[in-house]
Amino acid sequence: MSAKIAIVGSGQLAQMMAQAGIPMGMQFSFLAETTEDTCCVDTLGTVVVRDKSSDASSLYKALGEPDVVSVEKEHVDIDLLIALEQFCPVRPNPRALEKFKNRRVEKRFLQSLNIPISPFLPIASIEQIDQAASQLKHPVFLKSEEEGYDGYNQYKVTEQTLDAVKGAIQFPSEWVAESFVDFQREVSFLAARSVDGEILFYPAVENYHRDGTLLTSIAPAENISEAIRLKAESYLTSILEGLDYIGLICMECFLCDDELLVNEIAPRVHNSGHWTSKGALTSQFENHVRAVSGLSLGSTEVHGISGMLNLLGVTLTAQQVSGEKTFLTLYGKAVRPRRKLGHVTINHHDYETLQRQLRVLKSMAYKE
Amino acid sequence: MSAKIAIVGSGQLAQMMAQAGIPMGMQFSFLAETTEDTCCVDTLGTVVVRDKSSDASSLYKALGEPDVVSVEKEHVDIDLLIALEQFCPVRPNPRALEKFKNRRVEKRFLQSLNIPISPFLPIASIEQIDQAASQLKHPVFLKSEEEGYDGYNQYKVTEQTLDAVKGAIQFPSEWVAESFVDFQREVSFLAARSVDGEILFYPAVENYHRDGTLLTSIAPAENISEAIRLKAESYLTSILEGLDYIGLICMECFLCDDELLVNEIAPRVHNSGHWTSKGALTSQFENHVRAVSGLSLGSTEVHGISGMLNLLGVTLTAQQVSGEKTFLTLYGKAVRPRRKLGHVTINHHDYETLQRQLRVLKSMAYKE
Repeated sequence: MSAKIAIVGSGQLAQMMAQAGIPMGMQFSFLAETTEDTCCVDTLGTVVVRDKSSDASSLYKALGEPDVVSVEKEHVDIDLLIALEQFCPVRPNPRALEKFKNRRVEKRFLQSLNIPISPFLPIASIEQIDQAASQLKHPVFLKSEEEGYDGYNQYKVTEQTLDAVKGAIQFPSEWVAESFVDFQREVSFLAARSVDGEILFYPAVENYHRDGTLLTSIAPAENISEAIRLKAESYLTSILEGLDYIGLICMECFLCDDELLVNEIAPRVHNSGHWTSKGALTSQFENHVRAVSGLSLGSTEVHGISGMLNLLGVTLTAQQVSGEKTFLTLYGKAVRPRRKLGHVTINHHDYETLQRQLRVLKSMAYKE
Repeated sequence: MSAKIAIVGSGQLAQMMAQAGIPMGMQFSFLAETTEDTCCVDTLGTVVVRDKSSDASSLYKALGEPDVVSVEKEHVDIDLLIALEQFCPVRPNPRALEKFKNRRVEKRFLQSLNIPISPFLPIASIEQIDQAASQLKHPVFLKSEEEGYDGYNQYKVTEQTLDAVKGAIQFPSEWVAESFVDFQREVSFLAARSVDGEILFYPAVENYHRDGTLLTSIAPAENISEAIRLKAESYLTSILEGLDYIGLICMECFLCDDELLVNEIAPRVHNSGHWTSKGALTSQFENHVRAVSGLSLGSTEVHGISGMLNLLGVTLTAQQVSGEKTFLTLYGKAVRPRRKLGHVTINHHDYETLQRQLRVLKSMAYKE
């Protein structure tokens, strides 16, 4: 009766999806690459380590013949997912996921839906780096088309770094050069879509990055105009409906005056939605597992104002964090530099108190 | 750095405490009797099945040398807990737990704190049943001093049943006869106390029982006067401080006009607090594990109005339950008559909608 969900990936996102689904009677299994550390999910279900020789049929069996396959990341083997569709639904579907695996494909797709994005150029040679550096607004960011995220495989191109970047870049792998965007704020929008086509939105989240990685989030973001919210929701609706997308999606944007530029789509639960576990009636994790297993969505109504601080390569103890309005989540990973080890969630009724407490926790975590 | 908590007991309460604590970095182990089904906790930590021959020292080692021992039930071996105190704190402490293991001891203790309870008589012989039947207000309830809960080992004594009850009762085990209470409502009050002595209260919960077992709860209970709330909180404060009690406690009461009579104390997380997982900023489970591991408490602030329906010997599927404001929790147990298999939580903004949805779910679950 209860759904069996196989997740491709075995990190903290898979972990939190399972932690949300298990109390609802769902069963989980996880598909990991040989290089993946599976410590986040080891006690939450069967972990299958993918062998180069294993075909979809044997993987489907090893995963416990799940009712549905889902993913915790966009860097997945699309062909494998398509092969798995012979045995059970894959949600979001592989054609949708394929749109967000490659930066250039993603940008072209967003353009095809008339969704505004910042100027970019595909880069396939050293010469094109020079062209991008002269044509796009500085500083230009050079990002790997497929493997770059959280600041990895990303380079900032300035007059000073141009030669160094040209030396560091490896071809023939594909890159895109993104124009500098003079944004005021970074905001993300999360939405979920069910099998029945129902779409629910969470309120805008304001994000602060450090070295390309999310450091803190605040939700609902302050002073988001109705016009911006409606724009964001209409972009998400075209994406979700256009792709018959099922599950949670995150759209990361730049806010420049009254313009909303879409920077990146994450076709999965997202770090900027971790606050929903404390600050919304239904967490992003519960809504994702509800959606992919064919259930209707839970209310995205929020209470209070939530803040989230990522623990990147540093950790805090429950003793240091746990206060009346502060909550610790740890993923159970060993400490490594920059690694996402956990996060702190705060919930308050005013932005000022929230910001102050976020600053205190940040200096405690990062000793600054 | 992170706390290791051993729980005496291996049912759904232990399960939900562990599910609350594990994401905070806590580790759990469980002590079960040979008769206990441990399916609720099998994947959440080490399960130690107690052997008659095992002493405190070997149990402490088998439990992984925990930082603290806690309990999920009041029917525990107090001597074992006292012996375990040589190795680590036991919270709530065994002297406190001892007060609530035996109905007569509990009633005498509450009387010693001037907390109003309903009239009762200790019963140790057939003759005393006759005396109770003539002295106390009818119908009289006869309850086992130590083993009765959720309607088990409880008898209703009326003129019609008197002889049958006398035939069914086994001596020398001890019983108490409780006077009928002409109450209007049943309400419970939950509170948590930290190692630092901080006490936080959840709002009153209104409970509806069937055959002596909790069926539904609504929180915050409607129309609880400030006077009643203050009375309840002062009773709980005397109990918690008088016993240097650490952890979550539940006080079940009868509300008769403006009088509050305490019926029973549960020295643990309680079924009437399950709604806190969805309806309060910090669940009763998180506050219990925070308290016993020496952390400060999390806010008991609530959002909306919550309802809880117990699934007793019946179950519902996620498909049947999951709505925008309805949430399913299953404990993973096999179906047996009357067994607590899970619960449904509802969260709304008005009592009427909540009550209506509760009725719909109740008839769906119980086919009535």
